[in-house]
Amino acid sequence: MRDESVFMDLAIRLAEKGRGRTAPNPCVGAVLVRDGEVVAEGWHTACGQPHAEVEALRDARAKGIDPSGCTLYVTLEPCNHHGKTPPCTQAILDAGIGEVVIGCTDPNRSVAGGGADRLLDGGVRVRTGLREQECKDLIADFLIWQTTARPYSILKLATTLDGKIATRDGQAAWISGEASRREVHRLRTWCGAVIVGGGTFRADNPMLTCRLPGYDGPQPLAVIVSRELPDPAKGSHLLSARPGQTVFWTTEAQSRSGRAAQLADLGVTVWGLPFLKSEPETLDLGAGLQLLRSDKGCLYTLTEGGGHLAGSMQRQGLVDELRIFQAMKVLGDEEARSAFAGRKALSMQDCWEFRTVEQGFFDTDLYLRLRAKE
Amino acid sequence: MRDESVFMDLAIRLAEKGRGRTAPNPCVGAVLVRDGEVVAEGWHTACGQPHAEVEALRDARAKGIDPSGCTLYVTLEPCNHHGKTPPCTQAILDAGIGEVVIGCTDPNRSVAGGGADRLLDGGVRVRTGLREQECKDLIADFLIWQTTARPYSILKLATTLDGKIATRDGQAAWISGEASRREVHRLRTWCGAVIVGGGTFRADNPMLTCRLPGYDGPQPLAVIVSRELPDPAKGSHLLSARPGQTVFWTTEAQSRSGRAAQLADLGVTVWGLPFLKSEPETLDLGAGLQLLRSDKGCLYTLTEGGGHLAGSMQRQGLVDELRIFQAMKVLGDEEARSAFAGRKALSMQDCWEFRTVEQGFFDTDLYLRLRAKE
Repeated sequence: MRDESVFMDLAIRLAEKGRGRTAPNPCVGAVLVRDGEVVAEGWHTACGQPHAEVEALRDARAKGIDPSGCTLYVTLEPCNHHGKTPPCTQAILDAGIGEVVIGCTDPNRSVAGGGADRLLDGGVRVRTGLREQECKDLIADFLIWQTTARPYSILKLATTLDGKIATRDGQAAWISGEASRREVHRLRTWCGAVIVGGGTFRADNPMLTCRLPGYDGPQPLAVIVSRELPDPAKGSHLLSARPGQTVFWTTEAQSRSGRAAQLADLGVTVWGLPFLKSEPETLDLGAGLQLLRSDKGCLYTLTEGGGHLAGSMQRQGLVDELRIFQAMKVLGDEEARSAFAGRKALSMQDCWEFRTVEQGFFDTDLYLRLRAKE
Repeated sequence: MRDESVFMDLAIRLAEKGRGRTAPNPCVGAVLVRDGEVVAEGWHTACGQPHAEVEALRDARAKGIDPSGCTLYVTLEPCNHHGKTPPCTQAILDAGIGEVVIGCTDPNRSVAGGGADRLLDGGVRVRTGLREQECKDLIADFLIWQTTARPYSILKLATTLDGKIATRDGQAAWISGEASRREVHRLRTWCGAVIVGGGTFRADNPMLTCRLPGYDGPQPLAVIVSRELPDPAKGSHLLSARPGQTVFWTTEAQSRSGRAAQLADLGVTVWGLPFLKSEPETLDLGAGLQLLRSDKGCLYTLTEGGGHLAGSMQRQGLVDELRIFQAMKVLGDEEARSAFAGRKALSMQDCWEFRTVEQGFFDTDLYLRLRAKE
């Protein structure tokens, strides 16, 4: 199992290329291997397009390679049902593939009818579980869409080594470097909504758009979480430049206020969220996320702070993934703004624990992609 | 230059094996290469022992390999003077080495007489500057000993992702995992003194010893920085178990107090430090470090927090190296203790900037070794 992990790792990297375009399908990658050499590659490029297995078979044929007898490494169990495309199991059997190595089984197996079983019945050798955790991580978004009514929620932070996201006066420009900020703009190309707290809205007066040079694709919704709605007469970039793409999450009382009506006249969406039953002083952010999915079709959201919003999201179990850009610098002021705020934690046992899914650098900034530790 | 970097990288790793035992000499590593293959290795194992180049030549001969015509990769320019050992240049010339590739030149070149020049005069090809920054980093401790009167100062932190080192009540057990804590105990085997603030002393009642299983080598001094000396009548692990290895840095006034005399009677060292001329309210920690070197022979110190001491060390320019063990967890309480404290920083431009020298993991904890960015 040791050596062939590299094939699954490649399949995982290929799968990631589809992130943001395959929704509501999962990202899947596949490679065909003969005699220890990768001979073809494929991934699910976008919803409605062929699945990864079929793309790999196509790639082989385009290269003049007969895939029969090859081993197929695929991150997710091949489908066995007619959806927008014919079942991959049939394509695999027709191609005469000798062995299929599967990263993780289809979470909808009972519904889907067992792709692995169908392959076994057809005389194909099947093994399952190579790089299983990594392959499960690859479809974490898909699992959220399947099991909840909300979007997949990413929390992004740019921090110093001492965990600060802004000075005590709220200045945050710039903690992270250009390469990190470019990556955040790239995230905004495939996240349907960018969510910030009212403090960030007031302090930064942000646009929350993707401003990559040459980018002219869709822009994410801008969501502001604030119990107090802003006075529309006082200008802001969002209200003047793109009111129709701006959403406020506020209290139900505020959502019925005159100010809410004024904002609605500008084309702004104002949603009153209920308070949590468990914490009567806290807005139910999950309700807001669900509305983003049901009313606006959002499948990914990117929460960008500040600390109180980050803390609330985490407390409410609404952080599916944490992406941290950590600048190799120290602010050294204990009263500067912390990355997470809003609770009193009296023991280290109260910590929220994470698991590292990816780690790298953007220029000199450390980059961590984390998920809650199970 | 691309491929042969791996030889210098190996020499660097070999050099690190001597860390803590070569002092006051620098750590140096060397490899002998023939036809693109490493045929022998050497490093300076301890003060008084042969230099790395001589060790590599010995290693070759022990393996029955004639080093003549080999290329020598060495992290630091070979010495050209009689110290505790004969000059390495002569050994290199005698061995008939064809080429010497040097990581960084000897900072004492003028004094030392130019090892590289001597080799060139002897007909050896010499190149300099392969992995120069890494090779300079390797001897950063040596440069501090050469250019200052204090020990090389390492600041160690164990933090959460939100930069906390303890709860608001000062509880820190345990942020980092077992593997990280073992590494800290390993650092204590070669750092001559462990320095903590008075708050840590009072909250944790620490021993500050290396407690690795089976370790019976020397223990570091325990240094406590506190304006108020403790009451010897109130027990503490340090005062009862190892008063002779305990040092207090306090104000000059406190050092003349009755309590200081009581502590001295127990065998404890009490040093009154002057206030900084630039900041009359701040103890001159550099003076304390110098005393550790001059009076106690310390060449490395390990400062372990808390946040105010870390901040003071950094403000006074006394952090030569920062080692951070970062647990993949979030405390989420903005009033918990920050890794650095004690200054008001009103702009992100006020940040202290660092450069990553090494990055890895201890189990699931992220590990960063950093130096001030030049």
